[in-house]
Amino acid sequence: MSPGSPILVLDSGLGGLTVAKAIREVLPHDDILYFGDTARLPYGSKTAATVTTFIRQIISYLRPHDPKHVVIACNTATALALPAIRSEFPDLSISGVIEPGAKAAVAAAGAKEVPTIGIIATEATVRSKAYERAIHRRRHHARLLLRPTPLIVPIIEEGRGTDDPLVKLALRQYLEPLIERKIDVLVLGCTHYPILKNLIQKIVGAKVKVIDSGQQCAEDVARRLRSAGLLRGDSVGGGSIRCFVTDDSPRFKVLASRFIGHEIDSPKWVSPDELYRVALPPQPDLRKAI
Amino acid sequence: MSPGSPILVLDSGLGGLTVAKAIREVLPHDDILYFGDTARLPYGSKTAATVTTFIRQIISYLRPHDPKHVVIACNTATALALPAIRSEFPDLSISGVIEPGAKAAVAAAGAKEVPTIGIIATEATVRSKAYERAIHRRRHHARLLLRPTPLIVPIIEEGRGTDDPLVKLALRQYLEPLIERKIDVLVLGCTHYPILKNLIQKIVGAKVKVIDSGQQCAEDVARRLRSAGLLRGDSVGGGSIRCFVTDDSPRFKVLASRFIGHEIDSPKWVSPDELYRVALPPQPDLRKAI
Repeated sequence: MSPGSPILVLDSGLGGLTVAKAIREVLPHDDILYFGDTARLPYGSKTAATVTTFIRQIISYLRPHDPKHVVIACNTATALALPAIRSEFPDLSISGVIEPGAKAAVAAAGAKEVPTIGIIATEATVRSKAYERAIHRRRHHARLLLRPTPLIVPIIEEGRGTDDPLVKLALRQYLEPLIERKIDVLVLGCTHYPILKNLIQKIVGAKVKVIDSGQQCAEDVARRLRSAGLLRGDSVGGGSIRCFVTDDSPRFKVLASRFIGHEIDSPKWVSPDELYRVALPPQPDLRKAI
Repeated sequence: MSPGSPILVLDSGLGGLTVAKAIREVLPHDDILYFGDTARLPYGSKTAATVTTFIRQIISYLRPHDPKHVVIACNTATALALPAIRSEFPDLSISGVIEPGAKAAVAAAGAKEVPTIGIIATEATVRSKAYERAIHRRRHHARLLLRPTPLIVPIIEEGRGTDDPLVKLALRQYLEPLIERKIDVLVLGCTHYPILKNLIQKIVGAKVKVIDSGQQCAEDVARRLRSAGLLRGDSVGGGSIRCFVTDDSPRFKVLASRFIGHEIDSPKWVSPDELYRVALPPQPDLRKAI
């Protein structure tokens, strides 16, 4: 691989585009390959075995593009699959969104002796305790309040706006118990949530620092590439973004523009069948027969 | 196959259990194999190509059980995949939930010259126009109002009760435009929705006939088995229900009891990998090599 190799950004669907967008802002000359597993989304209610299988297939499929870095731009997949996937692909540089988010949360908590940090995320991310581990490793004395907020993703996917009373009610229901317990910091522990960041900030109040892990993740990727000597110079012009999806729905292109902030090319459809063929466990006898 | 052969009931997840329950009430001596594709749910936002692939895999996997009938207990899968699946498995008896629902809706519309029939369903079911076709074939002069209601499934899957203000607000938002246009009949065009039937009936008012297609579907299955001479007698005692899932989450067993009305055995986990192996297109050379 070389500084010109692409960065892979993987997600269950659209949410990871908030991370891709942040990476484009920090590394405007890099090419990004974005994979949205839209045939099998969401990941947030599913188990580690299932999500790890899906991520393994996606990386196996995209590997021939010789990526200089792979970002698992989905909190659920980071929480459930990152350690297993790293050990299965030891020659690839792979990062997730939870460590950068945890680091930013601890920094935002500042000097307070025992800060209270709220984290909203999918059920699977909450159950995994990945945020507890990542935050407590950096700061032992922090009170953590985790809250699964499973309706936020479908609300965003439906395309509801922030003036919709149902959106406000859902956020108030989820956030009020955290506000009552006086959180100092709120981590948006799902890459979809930054779409509603302004409304969330308004509900929790200006004193609460709201952490968007996509932003932190992009800076983390830049740091990793810099230290590996893989930053791409600005002589090449603007980088490209190319998308892959497993369900070929016109929805993707429409909603994607809302996430990334500009029009994108039509994504390439990769059927789940194709993923399974690429990622089937090696069967030496069969291979010889072919 | 024989009268003792099982009935297969297929769904993306839990919703089809409302149909399985109705089948158990109508055919209490029959064995049911229920398949919930929990690793890849929901189907309601996905395309025909994707959903047809999933249903093909599931039927290929369960086929060795020699089913006397297959019910696609999911409106989205019925709308997107039933005709293709029927032609791929010509020796199997396969039915869905839309024809029985449409038949019941037309019957409920009664003698009114131009009845107004509302249908709430997933985005994919609405887009497919399957309900329009099924109702207009039976009754040309009916005004149909279709409404995608994508949040209802995640609301039910989250386990929210009918006294939750967000559940009431979501249903009111979705149903009010139908009430204003004076529907005579409302079809619950998704097998999850009967869980909220009482609240839906309260919101639309007692004059509107609310159709639960699961009930109609069960009667349709009984009729088909009777005419094929495949009804199972009562000498064998109560039938069993055995569940299969693609994501092995403890959620399934817990929420399933809410749908089926009693405790069920732990489901058997069938990984999507296993499904792909069973359903890979035949490759004669490879088969010889094995």
